[in-house]
Amino acid sequence: MSTITHSLSELAARFELRLHGEADRRIDGVGTLAGAGPGQLSFLANSKYAAQLGATRAGVVVLHAENLADCPTAALVARDPYVAYAKIAALFERLPAAAPGIHPSAVVAPSARVSASASIGPCCVIGDRAVIGDGAVLGPHCIVGDDCHVGAHARLVARVTLVTRVSLGKRVLVHPGAVIGSDGFGLAFDRDAFDHGGWVKLPQLGGVRIGDDCEIGANTTIDRGALDDTVLEQDVRLDNQIQIAHNVQIGAHTAMAGCAAVAGSAKIGRYCMIGGNAGVLGHLELADRVTITAKSLVTHSIREPGEYSSGVPLQDTRLWRKNAARFKHLDGYARRLSALEKDKDKNHE
Amino acid sequence: MSTITHSLSELAARFELRLHGEADRRIDGVGTLAGAGPGQLSFLANSKYAAQLGATRAGVVVLHAENLADCPTAALVARDPYVAYAKIAALFERLPAAAPGIHPSAVVAPSARVSASASIGPCCVIGDRAVIGDGAVLGPHCIVGDDCHVGAHARLVARVTLVTRVSLGKRVLVHPGAVIGSDGFGLAFDRDAFDHGGWVKLPQLGGVRIGDDCEIGANTTIDRGALDDTVLEQDVRLDNQIQIAHNVQIGAHTAMAGCAAVAGSAKIGRYCMIGGNAGVLGHLELADRVTITAKSLVTHSIREPGEYSSGVPLQDTRLWRKNAARFKHLDGYARRLSALEKDKDKNHE
Amino acid sequence: MSTITHSLSELAARFELRLHGEADRRIDGVGTLAGAGPGQLSFLANSKYAAQLGATRAGVVVLHAENLADCPTAALVARDPYVAYAKIAALFERLPAAAPGIHPSAVVAPSARVSASASIGPCCVIGDRAVIGDGAVLGPHCIVGDDCHVGAHARLVARVTLVTRVSLGKRVLVHPGAVIGSDGFGLAFDRDAFDHGGWVKLPQLGGVRIGDDCEIGANTTIDRGALDDTVLEQDVRLDNQIQIAHNVQIGAHTAMAGCAAVAGSAKIGRYCMIGGNAGVLGHLELADRVTITAKSLVTHSIREPGEYSSGVPLQDTRLWRKNAARFKHLDGYARRLSALEKDKDKNHE
Repeated sequence: MSTITHSLSELAARFELRLHGEADRRIDGVGTLAGAGPGQLSFLANSKYAAQLGATRAGVVVLHAENLADCPTAALVARDPYVAYAKIAALFERLPAAAPGIHPSAVVAPSARVSASASIGPCCVIGDRAVIGDGAVLGPHCIVGDDCHVGAHARLVARVTLVTRVSLGKRVLVHPGAVIGSDGFGLAFDRDAFDHGGWVKLPQLGGVRIGDDCEIGANTTIDRGALDDTVLEQDVRLDNQIQIAHNVQIGAHTAMAGCAAVAGSAKIGRYCMIGGNAGVLGHLELADRVTITAKSLVTHSIREPGEYSSGVPLQDTRLWRKNAARFKHLDGYARRLSALEKDKDKNHE
Repeated sequence: MSTITHSLSELAARFELRLHGEADRRIDGVGTLAGAGPGQLSFLANSKYAAQLGATRAGVVVLHAENLADCPTAALVARDPYVAYAKIAALFERLPAAAPGIHPSAVVAPSARVSASASIGPCCVIGDRAVIGDGAVLGPHCIVGDDCHVGAHARLVARVTLVTRVSLGKRVLVHPGAVIGSDGFGLAFDRDAFDHGGWVKLPQLGGVRIGDDCEIGANTTIDRGALDDTVLEQDVRLDNQIQIAHNVQIGAHTAMAGCAAVAGSAKIGRYCMIGGNAGVLGHLELADRVTITAKSLVTHSIREPGEYSSGVPLQDTRLWRKNAARFKHLDGYARRLSALEKDKDKNHE
Repeated sequence: MSTITHSLSELAARFELRLHGEADRRIDGVGTLAGAGPGQLSFLANSKYAAQLGATRAGVVVLHAENLADCPTAALVARDPYVAYAKIAALFERLPAAAPGIHPSAVVAPSARVSASASIGPCCVIGDRAVIGDGAVLGPHCIVGDDCHVGAHARLVARVTLVTRVSLGKRVLVHPGAVIGSDGFGLAFDRDAFDHGGWVKLPQLGGVRIGDDCEIGANTTIDRGALDDTVLEQDVRLDNQIQIAHNVQIGAHTAMAGCAAVAGSAKIGRYCMIGGNAGVLGHLELADRVTITAKSLVTHSIREPGEYSSGVPLQDTRLWRKNAARFKHLDGYARRLSALEKDKDKNHE
């Protein structure tokens, strides 16, 4: 396997960065300030790591102009070093080979349309009327169900399931184990079913529409809509094991951390940040630019941008147990406090 | 693809509904009150949407008798419009083709017994002594392990894993990514293992029994029992990403929302409703008709039907932080409150 | 299928236990005290079940010396009956047949190295430069991506995904649906992207290293590192649906219950116990021998061994709602309480 290298002058020109130091030095990878060697590029984006700059052995460091004086090696000056680093590092990512064509073990329905430039991996199954766009890459074991559409240059890493009526935009990236377009959880309680009543399933007749540049994490589930579609606008970023219920709408550029969950028909704005294992109840609306911290539960609509939280702090279990037991009587304490205040006021009169 | 249509008189007769309006009008789909057109059926079940009735362009509306006067189009009067709608809408659901037979890419053990009327999709793997019942449908990539039994007319949508000793009743519906019958999480701490102790695994020798008409959501996991079986009675409905540990028992007609979790050997009654991301600790018992709200944690057995909750409300993070910090001293506040009350009583003596 | 049997004398010798009763009695399985029959072995490890000992019909019971007098049948005396039982029960576990060799439906890259004693099941896909060690068993539908290494005698039950640069130690056991080595969730916000800013992905260039004897549950996800590796030391035990983010480190012998989640770069010590659906925020450190109870959120590093909790107790929803509403004003109550105390002190002066 040959190694990719890039010269500093080439990186400076390509990413519009100001270069200090040897233009001809060649870089073949990236690393942390502490770990990178002379052939590698590193970055300083967080002032917490500024102390490591002086001792770095990296060949070049991407940094703010304000840190330039402290840099013992070549530097690429960026307005936003983290963003610049992200873009440079992508040059060194080694994706699995994905030659155009359909692996002989794949099963493709005759009515499906697969672009000649798409790559369909081993054991993929592609259903009726499915469309696979130009340059799309389906790793091994992907299932693209009936009436699904995979946009140009989308990448389904491996073992992705698009159940039915799922449309992925351009450059969408989906990680293994994700299930998109499964039945929403819609049930009506029928008093006449069984002996004392039981459930009747509501057919889930909608689909899922996922905008360009979205990323869907491993084992994340996104159900299709009951009547209308479940919708993710462009550049929505979902981490692993997230659950998106039927008819949810998520605005562009919103990001959710692992294990977050959104219940049916909730509508989340643009540029929101939903923390790990946070939850949003059904039918609520969140404005643009709302941040929810980890493990919080959103139980009412939020009209104003800002950061919101719930939960109580972690403590030693013996202390916590005493406080938690008191929580069960908090309403009583508040009433007793008010009574004492009234009594005091009376006595002061 | 031809379109299915049904006349209003046919729907009225089949579902025992009272028809008002043109008996010959034909319906080819369903939609919301706001979205349905003249060829579609809609419904009004929730009075919140009553205002939309007057303006609907739907061909027919399923509704309560009390809303009949306000309906501008044909109507089908139902005692429970939501249940009636669910049953009618099922007529318009288009399931993937599932012709009887075994796809050539499937791998079926010689000792397995597959009904001639079952449909086994691409890349399915069926293990030793497994039994697939009449009319059962296994979509692509299903794994049915050794000694598993799939009941008649069960449907494994795609990529379902039954590990071993799993029995599914009739008409059970399982969504992609579900793993049923994996090892329960049973460990004994062995002080003599490694240097300072380590884990010894308890073999999980039981199975999983799932009753008729159950539904299991995408990426949900149900472990098999350690000695006895894990059991779901009939018509249990599990949403996506639910975790059911070994030896759990769930009573008939209980429903759980996404990301709920039940720890080992817990026993949940019939007609319970477990909210999203709620948890039940191990070895507890929940009576019939217990409702647990979203994200609550059940830490003791519940003997009485009713609704139960835990958690604290969402607030602006700055306000929340102040309150949360106080929670750590709640026991102290309660004591100080009592002391003030005693002091007051003393002064009043 | 022939049945395996073991004589009591053989079990006593093999596991170094003291035998009371018929040395020649043969055992062909295990069961609970209440359920085991004369051909089966049971155990008494928890004094809660001591009352069942007198009535057991088991052929032999593994127990503490202190319970020997109450045992109506043969007994195997152990210092730790639960550990001894776990080891004996493993003899009766029936694993699926796994003959060495590669199933004809598997797809193996020419550059992969598969041990002649390994077993590769149906539809497995093995990538470039992957290595499968001696005696390793890959059940059906496993994907081993480029540059992955599966240690000797590891067992991937079925449908396991190792994405890329994943190394599994010896005897590692991975359950279906687990995804190891997927992209970590690394994003930089680029103010110049789209109209008002958007996300740039940070390539995830590290891998995952999993030590000997680890167990990974069904549908659990472990992301690979951004630059360095995500690391699990030996004998780490993860239940189902756990989420481990990029660059997390987990010390040896730590166990986590279902649905726990650990955010990026957190470092968890050895011999920790993380309860079900508990969470650990990013970049935190937990000392050795820290226990976190179910559904707690760790928001700061923990330097001392011990047990830690957060959350509030479950109540009837009507009572809970009153208390929860008061939580929003807890800071105010604390201030009012202090004011009353000051007022009292002033009056007492």
